[in-house]
Amino acid sequence: MVQVNENYLKLKAGYLFPEISKRVNLHIQKNNPGNLIKLGIGDVTEPLPNACIQAMSNALNEMATETGFRGYGPEQGYSWLREKIAKNDFLSRGCEIEPDEIFVSDGSKCDSSNILDILGKNNTIAVTDPVYPVYVDSNVMTGRTGNALKTGGYEGLTYLPICEDNNFKPQIPKQKVDIIYLCFPNNPTGATITKDELQKWVDYANKNNSLIFFDAAYEAFIQDQNVPHSIYEIKGARNCAIEFRSFSKNAGFTGVRCAYTVIPKIIQGFNTNLEKIDLWSLWNRRQSTKFNGVSYIVQRGAEAVYSDQGKIEVKKLIDFYMNNAALMRNSLEKAGFKVYGGVNAPYVWIKVKDQMSSWDFFDYLLENANIVGTPGSGFGLAGEGYFRLSAFNSLRNVLDAMERIINI
Amino acid sequence: MVQVNENYLKLKAGYLFPEISKRVNLHIQKNNPGNLIKLGIGDVTEPLPNACIQAMSNALNEMATETGFRGYGPEQGYSWLREKIAKNDFLSRGCEIEPDEIFVSDGSKCDSSNILDILGKNNTIAVTDPVYPVYVDSNVMTGRTGNALKTGGYEGLTYLPICEDNNFKPQIPKQKVDIIYLCFPNNPTGATITKDELQKWVDYANKNNSLIFFDAAYEAFIQDQNVPHSIYEIKGARNCAIEFRSFSKNAGFTGVRCAYTVIPKIIQGFNTNLEKIDLWSLWNRRQSTKFNGVSYIVQRGAEAVYSDQGKIEVKKLIDFYMNNAALMRNSLEKAGFKVYGGVNAPYVWIKVKDQMSSWDFFDYLLENANIVGTPGSGFGLAGEGYFRLSAFNSLRNVLDAMERIINI
Repeated sequence: MVQVNENYLKLKAGYLFPEISKRVNLHIQKNNPGNLIKLGIGDVTEPLPNACIQAMSNALNEMATETGFRGYGPEQGYSWLREKIAKNDFLSRGCEIEPDEIFVSDGSKCDSSNILDILGKNNTIAVTDPVYPVYVDSNVMTGRTGNALKTGGYEGLTYLPICEDNNFKPQIPKQKVDIIYLCFPNNPTGATITKDELQKWVDYANKNNSLIFFDAAYEAFIQDQNVPHSIYEIKGARNCAIEFRSFSKNAGFTGVRCAYTVIPKIIQGFNTNLEKIDLWSLWNRRQSTKFNGVSYIVQRGAEAVYSDQGKIEVKKLIDFYMNNAALMRNSLEKAGFKVYGGVNAPYVWIKVKDQMSSWDFFDYLLENANIVGTPGSGFGLAGEGYFRLSAFNSLRNVLDAMERIINI
Repeated sequence: MVQVNENYLKLKAGYLFPEISKRVNLHIQKNNPGNLIKLGIGDVTEPLPNACIQAMSNALNEMATETGFRGYGPEQGYSWLREKIAKNDFLSRGCEIEPDEIFVSDGSKCDSSNILDILGKNNTIAVTDPVYPVYVDSNVMTGRTGNALKTGGYEGLTYLPICEDNNFKPQIPKQKVDIIYLCFPNNPTGATITKDELQKWVDYANKNNSLIFFDAAYEAFIQDQNVPHSIYEIKGARNCAIEFRSFSKNAGFTGVRCAYTVIPKIIQGFNTNLEKIDLWSLWNRRQSTKFNGVSYIVQRGAEAVYSDQGKIEVKKLIDFYMNNAALMRNSLEKAGFKVYGGVNAPYVWIKVKDQMSSWDFFDYLLENANIVGTPGSGFGLAGEGYFRLSAFNSLRNVLDAMERIINI
């Protein structure tokens, strides 16, 4: 008799984005608004860089010929891409990352949840609150938590609040935690972490033999000099940190699918006999067995991100979205909101007014301004009373949306 | 202290394809042969169909424009692709499969190993012997087996031998097994299963509340009328079978990456209270949480496989490789081998002569004919004494390789 993985049954039914869709669809049915503006899900809107289009077009042409055709590629990614990543994203910032420590994949969502495959079930886990829901759900699904709590969250996870009270800085836990998820620039709050602050986390991890999962999907949006783009800018991070990166938000690859994960060869975990086991080998085995690499065409597109033209075009995209974010910050302050984020991240995180809940404000904004955002409480308990607006949209839509909010 | 998943440490070190690479590289270093022909790994060699190239080129052009750009797609795949799959691969054969029962993915290797995510740890598992190694290794990695046995294989798995003695038909186990992996046309033996034979497996599964994983990656190579392309051609299969399909071998997408998995909505597993839980919902949740869908560009390429031109071009590819297979069968018989497979599958499975072991024959063929094949024992104990040769190569290489084998 085939048995299911019962951990899936612990997952809360009212998942954030389906619930948003439901309410938006209901609103459309009822009111038929012609001018809905979506600032909810963090999806890019601008066309791909020409450098990437051109490179993928060339790759397609190769695939149409006998001599240029490529079948299975290396599961870890082509070396020409891994070398460009190592040079441009790491060596250029003084981070000692070798090409073969980079594993190319089809998405950070996959990587940040699949990484749990190689780790034991009894590790204790810490996440920030609010948090990207995938970190939590992937732990629930693999049996690393208890049941959902009535008050929100799951038994067995350590939640690190990030909110106004602590200036959106997670506090280092007093107890030992084996695995810590950190995402900076932060989704959803747009908060950042300085090098000094991140150094404290790395020191904590090395002292406790803990592992940090550092999600740097939004590093391209950093404007401040003192905000690290990679955790490997921090001394000691090679010993304790795995970093997730993506081409989704810098080069607009959300529909193209390419990302990568960095696992330094030196990082070690333990077996039950307290022998050291290197994680690189386990991940390499995992990817070789359960993954077949990223499309050749797509990898050529990712490689073009590092060309001279690609760099110029990516910077233009980033500047475009960050200009949106600045406009949004300005207008939302004018409208009387306390505004966070939007300076080194494409997300603006506002404090809801008049003691409304996050979902109340979601409904209010939808009904009165035809704007879709994301309720902060959807990212965790400590997100209650906040609201996320994404800067990924056309300038026209952003200006229009801001005018509507000011005039509600 | 971060703990690793110790199940990974049970995996046998000498994995098949790395061991082949090692021996081939040693041979190249020692003998510097200019004319090595690789008939080992089952990777296609012919260019992509023009219909697919054209469709992907159009999709790329869309992605370069404001109005045509696509960001995140549905995690389950675009509906236009799922509809074409349902119509062409299933409805056309009388199989009742709905578009939303089809989950588009980046590969069958991923799907056939990730599917274990939604199932309990205590299910008993049966695999054929020889077998595609990913089925076994993914079970080892998730703790569904005991240790590696000195005699080969792993504790706790039920092995179903397929060899000359049973005419390459796995026998239905006498005990109850919860999950059964079947791959037909078979990798590595090239054997097929008739509708009547497959009916017995479906009946067994329905009687025992078991689940069949049916891997039909090679269905496009079927020539005989009575060999089923899909398990859903069999009465009752909707209640007990999940099917894996791929664009890798029919349209040559090994480097492009697209596949799909079919989960009928009616299939159910059980929780520990013996309540029925539908698997479709669990997989849908798994894919939504841990996967971000397949590249838009690639999905447009897969869609073109079902266009009139695409169908003609795919048939031409299949005919080309099957002509290779026929030539190989003919020559290998001439060379005195007992030959199996190669009639409804792109793999020819030969009985090694002179009581050589599979690896002895691998070395013999490499050293004396500069040909790389795959030792049957690499696929399991019952593969000992057999050898796999792949028909995926140019006609010239196939003719050349066969001449060499005849003249050894």
